[in-house]
Order: sequence, then C-alpha cells, then structure tokens
Amino acid sequence: MLYFIGLGLGDAKDITVKGLEIVKQCSRVYLEAYTSILTVGKDALEEYYGRELILADRDMVEQEADEILKGADVSDVAFLVVGDPFGATTHSDLVLRAVNAGIQYRVIHNASIMNAVGCCGLQLYNFGETVSIVFWTDTWRPESFCDKIKKNRDLGMHTLCLLDIKVKEQSMENLMRGRKIYEPPRFMTVSQAAEQLLEIVQNRRERGDDLAISEETICVGLARVGAEDQVIRAGTLRQLASCDLGGPLHSMIVTGHLHPLEVDMLRLSAATPDSLQDLRMTDSSTYTS
Amino acid sequence: MLYFIGLGLGDAKDITVKGLEIVKQCSRVYLEAYTSILTVGKDALEEYYGRELILADRDMVEQEADEILKGADVSDVAFLVVGDPFGATTHSDLVLRAVNAGIQYRVIHNASIMNAVGCCGLQLYNFGETVSIVFWTDTWRPESFCDKIKKNRDLGMHTLCLLDIKVKEQSMENLMRGRKIYEPPRFMTVSQAAEQLLEIVQNRRERGDDLAISEETICVGLARVGAEDQVIRAGTLRQLASCDLGGPLHSMIVTGHLHPLEVDMLRLSAATPDSLQDLRMTDSSTYTS
Repeated sequence: MLYFIGLGLGDAKDITVKGLEIVKQCSRVYLEAYTSILTVGKDALEEYYGRELILADRDMVEQEADEILKGADVSDVAFLVVGDPFGATTHSDLVLRAVNAGIQYRVIHNASIMNAVGCCGLQLYNFGETVSIVFWTDTWRPESFCDKIKKNRDLGMHTLCLLDIKVKEQSMENLMRGRKIYEPPRFMTVSQAAEQLLEIVQNRRERGDDLAISEETICVGLARVGAEDQVIRAGTLRQLASCDLGGPLHSMIVTGHLHPLEVDMLRLSAATPDSLQDLRMTDSSTYTS
Repeated sequence: MLYFIGLGLGDAKDITVKGLEIVKQCSRVYLEAYTSILTVGKDALEEYYGRELILADRDMVEQEADEILKGADVSDVAFLVVGDPFGATTHSDLVLRAVNAGIQYRVIHNASIMNAVGCCGLQLYNFGETVSIVFWTDTWRPESFCDKIKKNRDLGMHTLCLLDIKVKEQSMENLMRGRKIYEPPRFMTVSQAAEQLLEIVQNRRERGDDLAISEETICVGLARVGAEDQVIRAGTLRQLASCDLGGPLHSMIVTGHLHPLEVDMLRLSAATPDSLQDLRMTDSSTYTS
C-alpha cells in the first residue's frame, strides 16, 4: 500500500493520530520537499516520528517515481506531504503511476492552506479560483494572475494568492555548466506580493485598463498559518506592501464582497487601528450590509 | 484559552496529535453537532479521547454561547468541530464573542471537505464558489445555486456542492405546538442532489434559459471522504442521479474545464467503464488538451 499522508501546517504534532501510526509501521517513508514547508525541519520530524525520512525533491518524484513505488505492492510505503496531499499536480501523477503498477493507495488527509485560510474570518464558500504569484525575473513578468483576481472580484469572490517558493533552484550559469549547485531557498513575502500587485495595478491604470483593484483594496496577509507564531494582517493593498510578517510561508488574500461578519473578523487583525474602521465608507463597492 | 479543534473527516483517529493532547487537558470539551458528522458517534469519540463530550447543537452555540465561554479566561475549554473549525459562520460568531469577553482563542486545523475533495483528482486551484444544495419543500424550491454553478462553469471552474444536513428539525406541527420532538436526521445523497439539478436543468431549458449544464455534464459524487469506506464516483449528471453511494455524508462536484491529468484521475472512479472513455468527443466544451 502507498500512503499519501498530509502533515498539516505547523510542526511535527500536526500530523493526525492515524497518520502517525501509519508512518511508524511503513517500510520506507518519503518526505515531499518542494511544494511547502513546516516551521520545523526534517531532523525534528525524524526525531518525533522515530523514523528516518527520505527527502523527495521534485526531480525524484518526477523522474524516479519507480524508486518510491518499489515494493509498495507487498509492503507499506508512506509519502509525506506538508498540508494535504492533493494540493500539487505531481501527486496525481504519482497516484496514477501507482495504480498502473497495480499498487493500492490511500490518502490520510490534513489541513492545507486551501482550507486553513478560513481562520482569518473570510468564508471559504466565497473564494473563487486560487492564483499563484511567482517571483519576477528580468525577462519573465507574468501578470495573468491579476486577470483571475479581477474575475473573482467581479463576482464578489475572494482570491487566495499562493506565493512563490524557490527550492533547489540553479543559477543560469550553474545550470548551463551542468553544475548541481543550488541557490538558497527563497519564499515570497506578503510585502513582495503586494508590491508586485501594486506595480501591475499602476501599469494597467496608465494603459486605461481597469483591474477592479486599487491601492485601497482590502487584502489579508497570512504568515505561518497553523503555527504558534501565526500572523494575520488585514489592511489595504498599500499597507500590506510595507508590512513585515516574519519568516515563511506567506500567503495573501485579495478580498471580494465582504459580509459584515467577515469585516468584524478582519478587524481583529487590522494592520492599523483605523485600517478597517471606515470600510463602509472608503470601499463601499466591496461591502454592503 | 478557547481551543477550536478540527476533527478531520473519518473517525476518532483523524484528530491531530496536537489536538488530542489539548482535548485531554481541557476542563470542558464541547462537540459541535450540526454542520457535519464523522463515521463514528459521540460514544466512540468519548471512549477514544478518554473525555466526556458536551454536545453543542445550533441552539446552544447561538443562544448559550456564554455557557461555552464560561471560565475560558482562566482555564482551557475545547470546542470540537468535524472537519476544520472555519467552515461555518457561527464559529466566527463564537470567536468574536470570546474576543469581546477578553478570552484568547487558538485554532487547531484539520482536513475539511473544502480541501479533502482534491482526492478525486480535480485540482483545488480550479474550484470556483462553493454552493449548498438544500432539501426542497412543497413551498421552498431554491434554484439560485444553479446560477452560481453556471458562473463557475463559464469561467471553466469546478463547483463543490455541499449537500443538506437536517439535524434536530421539528415537524411543522411540533414546532407550532412548541413540542421539542425532533425528526430523525436526514442527509442529502448525491443521487437526490443530481435529480434536483436535473429537474432545474429541464425547467430552465423549457424556458429557453441556458444553464451551461446538461444531462451529460461530468459530475463527481463523493461519499464519506477520508473514511475507510470512502466512495468516489465520476460520471454524467444523469448517471449520478441513479447511483447509490451508501451512508452519509455525501458531496457532489459539477466539473468545469478538465485538464488531461484530471480526466485521467477521474477515470479511476468512473461510474461505468465507458463513462469517461470518450470524454473528449462527447463533452468537448469542457475538455481541451
């Protein structure tokens, strides 16, 4: 049996009781290490689970899947994923490979940012399509996520923005020389995401293109959701561009239509005492009682 | 401290290790009992947690919140919710009451249907607004959820449909006579939801109103997600109207634009061997490679 086990979002103890029991009994345990991270590292997990973990990076999952599946038809293998196992496409790929090889699989679910984000007080029901915001490079500055946010806002929906994670990236020089030397991991902050969004808003405005987003649009920054030191900050897009929410992981929400109860919840984490004080007046397009 | 603890979706062991530790140390433990259910009852949870649970129905949470909060400023109280604590509005209400009473709160997240639904192979990123389908009565037959599904489909998005739960309902007669006699709980099945949707599709068609949904639209029925006996069934809306997925809880997805990898995953749970065989030909509007 191949077990896909979600680890949740905080630390080693966010695994479920069922998940932990399975980890302890499997013959091999892999840790997926490229779509998300916990606030604790591999060593802390190994110590708590009492098991050696095999780090599975993107290359391994995509190119050496057979290695992961080996023997899973006669013994139990666990594949651990931060959050829930079904956030990222490649795990569907691993499921299909397992099924094609005649290996049974089972999923042990857990919280992921896709549902835990509800802790900020915005209703999960009212989220539209989720978008990803990636680090811009000199030559690649995608803006299409903004059009998705606009579509969501036009329908009154909130948008969860997942922020880029760069793990095991090579510099162009190392890549071209075939040197397996990797850059330090990078995690996009709420402030970086907000700045990028502001830049696009300004560019589009100059071109006469209305994105239905402005400097005053209410957004929510979230850092380390589910961990002890979680931070939630609600404020205008401009305010979030200058906030510091600390270490990774960060995510951001661009709000749509706000229900009064949602406003009351967001006030609990307002960036400044008056950030959401007069929401009714300053941003009435997104708020009706 | 008031702890909101998600129980996940299957049975007693789907609580997180952190959640279980907190349950064991709290002075009082409430179990929210109206937005969802596990495959095991209160007795099984009490035995496994080693704690007495106080059942908190909707009336109690809405009208006797002070009772729940009593003493939570000086001792620890736990409020257990099936799934994740932030699916339902009323828990925001309880958070706000706690904060206003000067009581700190903390959330222990877990899987909920809102993210665990990804196990069927559809990408969570590609879901639009979530809708609820309620039991129709002789006098109340809401159709507005269909318009939301249409909006999602117009954008290529999938729609998660949460199906009605009737717990502690009174008959009209008992309600009018003030008798606290309750009807047995009812849980809408995928088949009932699909039939209701088919009826609306037919009605609208007769009125010349295009819902962008037909008898052949690919839908996914899910039962007891996260439990050992979970069932996933992918097929046309017509096929799902006649399927029997067993005991509660059920949910349904109306698909939008399908990515090839999503189609491959859905084929693993096709209602009939040929349900999704020629998806490319029969439902090309929702599928491009």
